[in-house]
Amino acid sequence: LLDQTRLPAEEVVLACQTVDELIDAIQRLVVRGAPALGAAGALGVALALREAERKNWSASELADAVKRIREARPTAVNLAWGVDRVKPFIPAGFKAVLDEANALMEEDTKANRELSRHGADWLLAKVKKTRLCILTHCNTGALATTSWGTALGIIHELAERDAIEMVYADETRPLLQGSRLTAWELEQLQIPYKIQVDGAAASTIMRGLVDAAIIGADRIARNGDTANKIGSLGVALACQEAKIPFIVAAPASTVDLSTTSGEQINIELRKESEVLSFGQSNVAPSNARAFNPAFDVTPRRFISAIVTEFGVFEPNTEVDKDLSSVLKALQTV
Amino acid sequence: LLDQTRLPAEEVVLACQTVDELIDAIQRLVVRGAPALGAAGALGVALALREAERKNWSASELADAVKRIREARPTAVNLAWGVDRVKPFIPAGFKAVLDEANALMEEDTKANRELSRHGADWLLAKVKKTRLCILTHCNTGALATTSWGTALGIIHELAERDAIEMVYADETRPLLQGSRLTAWELEQLQIPYKIQVDGAAASTIMRGLVDAAIIGADRIARNGDTANKIGSLGVALACQEAKIPFIVAAPASTVDLSTTSGEQINIELRKESEVLSFGQSNVAPSNARAFNPAFDVTPRRFISAIVTEFGVFEPNTEVDKDLSSVLKALQTV
Repeated sequence: LLDQTRLPAEEVVLACQTVDELIDAIQRLVVRGAPALGAAGALGVALALREAERKNWSASELADAVKRIREARPTAVNLAWGVDRVKPFIPAGFKAVLDEANALMEEDTKANRELSRHGADWLLAKVKKTRLCILTHCNTGALATTSWGTALGIIHELAERDAIEMVYADETRPLLQGSRLTAWELEQLQIPYKIQVDGAAASTIMRGLVDAAIIGADRIARNGDTANKIGSLGVALACQEAKIPFIVAAPASTVDLSTTSGEQINIELRKESEVLSFGQSNVAPSNARAFNPAFDVTPRRFISAIVTEFGVFEPNTEVDKDLSSVLKALQTV
Repeated sequence: LLDQTRLPAEEVVLACQTVDELIDAIQRLVVRGAPALGAAGALGVALALREAERKNWSASELADAVKRIREARPTAVNLAWGVDRVKPFIPAGFKAVLDEANALMEEDTKANRELSRHGADWLLAKVKKTRLCILTHCNTGALATTSWGTALGIIHELAERDAIEMVYADETRPLLQGSRLTAWELEQLQIPYKIQVDGAAASTIMRGLVDAAIIGADRIARNGDTANKIGSLGVALACQEAKIPFIVAAPASTVDLSTTSGEQINIELRKESEVLSFGQSNVAPSNARAFNPAFDVTPRRFISAIVTEFGVFEPNTEVDKDLSSVLKALQTV
């Protein structure tokens, strides 16, 4: 794993030899981003099989390890999805599991490329400009996926069409995925960008400095309600007020049809110290407490478009549909 | 000046001996907060008179120094107001200026106490609960004023009436006035609080965790549009969506009747490094650029109440009024 906690200062690869190391890496956000977690979950099962062999685990020890990977973080559905996808191959052994994990990764890359084209087409048709200013939140690029990216994938696609004027990247406190990771990716892609504090998003949008906001998703409920990095909801509210598109981009693997609405999504509460300290130094009084939900839920009514590899769903215009029927319809096109 | 850049880790008093030192302290936010800047401006003129004596400044050198204090920061109207308030006393000498500055400070304290009572009365009548959960943004306590505070003054008043259950304090990036200063004050006042990242504000509000949001102001235009710390607008949008009160608290000295609407307010753009680095360490790629507006403007339509020492103005219910007529009417009550 490219250790995302150490970017942009250092590019360090962490090799996980055990399930415990992988779970620790997932929980410390060495690897993060919903689609990347899907890949980590699938590869984690292969890793578990290797460790089981080496350590002569019983079947129940192996099953327990797989379960712990599956539950290492609660909000992104892709992690459990990746584990579940390869689990049927466990009886067939390590190679079969690894092959399936690799297939999953190839599909994710393909899905990202396709959703990026759909999103770029939709947005350019909607906003009648040749070059767009886009706001994004958190990191949704190659680092958050197997490659290419989702929301940042659409931005990348737009840039390849010479249709990006400026990207406003929210820094994304507390862990600064925006300033550390999105900026690092935009730098490498040579796409012009500015980092702003998360609190600036509403005024950047209301002042007319951007044409649209594009974010990723950690879990999309059946009705279209979307959980994403804390701060996404505020971006959506401002877009609604400014009447500009608010776009959610994710592979269909992020859609969780078993969750009927956002209220059922389990929001991960993370350590208070992520908010109270910065690097090595405390920024708050020593007794201070913090409230640190890692995600928020944006109701479908604020979402202009949900973009998957199967196409674009507009929750506002197709009010009687949920994602189950939409995905089915789109998949069969 | 109690050096606010070093709180909460250290309580260090900075003694300014020259106008240049004071201007530097104002620009580095050693002293900040609209009412505190008013006091610093008034006392700064006294300081300038002392320095003029010591260094045999000409009248134009003195006038230039006073002008530079007045313009040290652009957005808070109180700084210029404080300077202008004592300027007529310059011909009468140092003591007269100092006396007027002290009078201004006493009035600010009195205004804060009164607006806090008005705000607490209004809110308790509006929200029919005995104990409230309040969200606040930036720092508006004793540190931001001469004493007591404005938005935090209302919270303090509510706490004295045993009517506070919990304060959610936005950390307020980039300079963390919330986690460093508001938390420090709440700690001293023994008011229960949690710090959250600014991006959490919208979901904390939409999830029903708070009954109201109360913020301060750096400049209130004649029509009620309000400039305040970046991030305030997002709080207002979420309150509107959640249908809970969004309250702006400030002494009448923050109302600038010569500014007809928010569009005319000059928003300070601060150094990019405030966003790109944290303490001594860079958090973004070395070539990264940032967009760092220090304030945003909340249009009056999102403001439930503007609370000054003269009483409460509800922009939504008194749509045909501006603050000029309101203040006049309230002042004569």
